[in-house]
Amino acid sequence: MSLKLYYAPGACSFVPHAALELAGAAFEPVLIKLHKGEQRTPAFLALNPRGQVPVLVDGEAPVTQIVAICLHLDAMFPQAGLLPAQGMARTRALETLMWMNNTVHPTFTHVFMPAKFTDDPAAQASVKAHALGRYRELLQELEGLVAARPGAWLAGAQPGVLDAYALTLLRWGGFAGIDPTTLPQTWALAQAFAALPAVARVIERERLQLNVYKPTVA
Amino acid sequence: MSLKLYYAPGACSFVPHAALELAGAAFEPVLIKLHKGEQRTPAFLALNPRGQVPVLVDGEAPVTQIVAICLHLDAMFPQAGLLPAQGMARTRALETLMWMNNTVHPTFTHVFMPAKFTDDPAAQASVKAHALGRYRELLQELEGLVAARPGAWLAGAQPGVLDAYALTLLRWGGFAGIDPTTLPQTWALAQAFAALPAVARVIERERLQLNVYKPTVA
Repeated sequence: MSLKLYYAPGACSFVPHAALELAGAAFEPVLIKLHKGEQRTPAFLALNPRGQVPVLVDGEAPVTQIVAICLHLDAMFPQAGLLPAQGMARTRALETLMWMNNTVHPTFTHVFMPAKFTDDPAAQASVKAHALGRYRELLQELEGLVAARPGAWLAGAQPGVLDAYALTLLRWGGFAGIDPTTLPQTWALAQAFAALPAVARVIERERLQLNVYKPTVA
Repeated sequence: MSLKLYYAPGACSFVPHAALELAGAAFEPVLIKLHKGEQRTPAFLALNPRGQVPVLVDGEAPVTQIVAICLHLDAMFPQAGLLPAQGMARTRALETLMWMNNTVHPTFTHVFMPAKFTDDPAAQASVKAHALGRYRELLQELEGLVAARPGAWLAGAQPGVLDAYALTLLRWGGFAGIDPTTLPQTWALAQAFAALPAVARVIERERLQLNVYKPTVA
């Protein structure tokens, strides 16, 4: 059974990318250059008509949606502990995973790509500013979850998809002008996660800088 | 083990509400009147600090996020077939569930509550109009998924959470001025789902009208 992951550096595809490496899976990483529009080629649209990364191809079957991909990998590699195996620990992890995916992640989309929500430049500026304030609040809420985490990692004793998503969301904050070191617990977690050998391979392959924050020149 | 579901009529809480009835679960439904701000009372905020329905309380533990609740119920009542049990059928269903939750659902939020995204009334109008066009496209995409479904129901042979979500998203379209009968496959699916005795109990408890579309007076 062959596995291929189509990813873009620093995009949310980092989450399944890290999951695959954490699981010790044999897979082929395929770089999609978003700035060159490679997600709009006929070959890519045949895999995902929505033109988004990531896509996991399991054998011949393309799978989209990072949470669906992560649950697919979790079922395939149960020993990896990408999520707690069962019970309320699993439900709590899924609750946080869903919140990251349907609340924090799309708030960043409003900051980064406000043109997805209105064609009017003035309205885009308003949406972006509003979302930036909200994103700061949500990263603070994430900081609280990290502070209250049930173990060394966000879901407990094992590093997994929640830590990968937390790293991604915090890193995106840097692009939005949010200094990651102002969220010390999340920043420490992201650094510890990035230092795991499996994750370090992903960081190197995606050529990611963990802290992309640049202080504004006043 | 007691189960309580806090729901608001016609909200996305319909999805776990239907799941509980489909599973034949013994549970206590608790109505939260959003228009009276009951999701902002101290008692409710103690259950869900984010002030949102639904909340499932399993014993003493509150669980939020509809997908997390549905996966919790699926693990609790595997015989109900709320989602396919395993393999690519399950992954496909999760992929669609995630898309509904992180793409279709929030697009409706932009139509229904544009003030969540900007304080400027002109920008709100622009966001709303843009989202409405997008929502029409997404319901067409849903219509394609319904047309290509692998069985009588959206995930296959058994009715489940995808059908409940499809009904909800199509019904919301009516509030946005989208006539559900213009999406004939989804409309037929929603009507068939609503007619199941378990679902009919939910429709009656929530006092829902399935088709809320009102033609605009020109």
